[in-house]
Amino acid sequence: MWRSLRPIGRSAASGGYRRYAWTGADADCRLWFRMQAEARRLDYEVDRNGNQWAWLGDREAGDAVVTGSHLDSVPDGGAFDGPLGVVSAFAALDELRSRGVRFARPFAVVNFADEEGARFGLACVGSRLVSGQLTREQAYALHDADGTSLPEAMEAAGHDPAGIGPDPERLARIGAFVELHVEQGRALDLSGDAIGIASAIWPHGRWRYDFAGEANHAGTTRLVDRRDPMLTYAETVLAARREAELAGAVATFGKIAVEPNGVNAIPSLVRGWLDARAADQAGLDAVVAGIETAARDHAARQGIDLTVVRESFTPVVEFAHTLRDELAGILGEKTPVLGTGAGHDAGILSAHVPTAMLFVRNPTGVSHSPAEAAAEDDCVAGVRALADVLEGLACR
Amino acid sequence: MWRSLRPIGRSAASGGYRRYAWTGADADCRLWFRMQAEARRLDYEVDRNGNQWAWLGDREAGDAVVTGSHLDSVPDGGAFDGPLGVVSAFAALDELRSRGVRFARPFAVVNFADEEGARFGLACVGSRLVSGQLTREQAYALHDADGTSLPEAMEAAGHDPAGIGPDPERLARIGAFVELHVEQGRALDLSGDAIGIASAIWPHGRWRYDFAGEANHAGTTRLVDRRDPMLTYAETVLAARREAELAGAVATFGKIAVEPNGVNAIPSLVRGWLDARAADQAGLDAVVAGIETAARDHAARQGIDLTVVRESFTPVVEFAHTLRDELAGILGEKTPVLGTGAGHDAGILSAHVPTAMLFVRNPTGVSHSPAEAAAEDDCVAGVRALADVLEGLACR
Repeated sequence: MWRSLRPIGRSAASGGYRRYAWTGADADCRLWFRMQAEARRLDYEVDRNGNQWAWLGDREAGDAVVTGSHLDSVPDGGAFDGPLGVVSAFAALDELRSRGVRFARPFAVVNFADEEGARFGLACVGSRLVSGQLTREQAYALHDADGTSLPEAMEAAGHDPAGIGPDPERLARIGAFVELHVEQGRALDLSGDAIGIASAIWPHGRWRYDFAGEANHAGTTRLVDRRDPMLTYAETVLAARREAELAGAVATFGKIAVEPNGVNAIPSLVRGWLDARAADQAGLDAVVAGIETAARDHAARQGIDLTVVRESFTPVVEFAHTLRDELAGILGEKTPVLGTGAGHDAGILSAHVPTAMLFVRNPTGVSHSPAEAAAEDDCVAGVRALADVLEGLACR
Repeated sequence: MWRSLRPIGRSAASGGYRRYAWTGADADCRLWFRMQAEARRLDYEVDRNGNQWAWLGDREAGDAVVTGSHLDSVPDGGAFDGPLGVVSAFAALDELRSRGVRFARPFAVVNFADEEGARFGLACVGSRLVSGQLTREQAYALHDADGTSLPEAMEAAGHDPAGIGPDPERLARIGAFVELHVEQGRALDLSGDAIGIASAIWPHGRWRYDFAGEANHAGTTRLVDRRDPMLTYAETVLAARREAELAGAVATFGKIAVEPNGVNAIPSLVRGWLDARAADQAGLDAVVAGIETAARDHAARQGIDLTVVRESFTPVVEFAHTLRDELAGILGEKTPVLGTGAGHDAGILSAHVPTAMLFVRNPTGVSHSPAEAAAEDDCVAGVRALADVLEGLACR
């Protein structure tokens, strides 16, 4: 199964994946999903929002057990973030069939569309749309860097966007959603466990910092006459690290756009994006406020106009305690329970459906990079754990 | 004359100019030059390297007096950098004709191709080629961001690139070159003078800093596990300012490229370009070494691999003292004599031909930006000064 998925959307230059929503690489991944569904005689379906479903049993009956993840990637992403959850879902079904167990509840594997948000700038678009956390109007306003809108991209990829929007009936028929995911940190590696259960997703958000100064000649403008926004950006990058260290949180400037971006021109505008996350809301508020205060202080001293825009925000997600306890019962009480700084479709769905997550150990701890890793033994352990969970939930 | 040149290559969004070498906007500028030459019954010529010449008198006779500048621009550049020198050259000829003076030496107005290097990354390509400071092979290796080579771009613009390369016979026929340019700083504004004479061009260069770290998930990677090159870049930006302040020099990071440049990804690579200039070589060496030392210290502490490449370098240019004294004699001994941090075609030619520069006051001091300015009275004073200089050199 891995072999057929591995080459899709892989960059020869970086070894990383570039599977952006509704592109050719994404279409290949979606075709792969459909072929896996049909090979298992599952009932294949695409919902109004472009998410793919593969059903076993009566999908209208309700109280379904659903598992899956996503197949799209960040720029030059790793092989596991997303696909491991989808591959493991199909493999767990194979395992359950080989065990000869019978399903007492409807079952589905799902591939949520556009989880990473690499193309349209918003993560978890497929699950947000289904759950109503993204409205139809907001979705129509999303555009990629080339100016293509989300509905245009869907249509170009052969999906009719006319029906996008909340789908509460679909959510109401789901009794439990379990997403298996490669861990995006080193907690399991440090504790020596192959598998963990998610407790919560840290609150997190994205803030755009626009530092506006004055374009000028880099060779002839005296330092005292400059209003160089790159200096304020640099101070802010270092302030973000300092504030995150103080609060035990994370804060990152990983994306930048500079105008005019010429070697011999002092920039007129430096635009930097801050990604910040913390274990709780108070911690996040402190980090974000500390960074903005440092940035504004420096901007005022250097004559820089600073605008800060919160582009997205997700409050803390606590996964359902009942379902989490059920998983711990099935997998053993010693299975570690851990929080994560990463957003997931499971985080979106958890506001509407009992939801849980399983993590598979990542020895490098690296994610969103070709260096992301999972040992084959751990992947097999993940499939077995997911099969145990599904058997416990759906077959008794 | 200005009115016909003003709209060419102007961006409606920024109000700045985007006249990159061998593009459509550049072709329009070049057509404008030819029309100005023909309207004055000058002998129009394009040399093998694509520079435009408009001759009065026998261009083969030798000991010619030449004036001019360039018409191309940086991204979103101002109206005066380059064009003021070409427009003033034609206007000064008009002035001399209205004075009824007779030329005793051959005279030409020149428009050097691709002075700013905005497209192919190297400044003063036209004058470097003529003077042999850029070889034919090096010119063939230049490519723009779309992968188009310089000869391909020339050919697409209708100039046969077969003949590019050194043109020493042409230089040997020039007895003096005078370039008028808008000042790119505030020295004349501060001293209250409309016109100045150049003493020297500061030594200057461009260095590319490649900070290589490890791409990772911005939400899940603990701070201690990170190798984030953006932090080292930020430290280096601030070090550059500090070192420049210490040395009375200028140092600027105005261009950056980040991979993968995603909001939720710690960068794998941050590439920043340093532009540094100082009044003398020792000062420049100190600044450049200080910045690199600071960058390497921080890189070593953060596990960042740093590569520094010097992409270009121009040693100090002292303009010919005899010609400079001659200009001071014509314009009055009180005319300020000032150095500049900007490179110019005059700087390239000065190694081969007696060369001088005149500066026209820029009240904002701003350059390489739409805010670049020159008062009409000062432009008129510039034309008059240039006419006086040309009359003194060519008509006696």
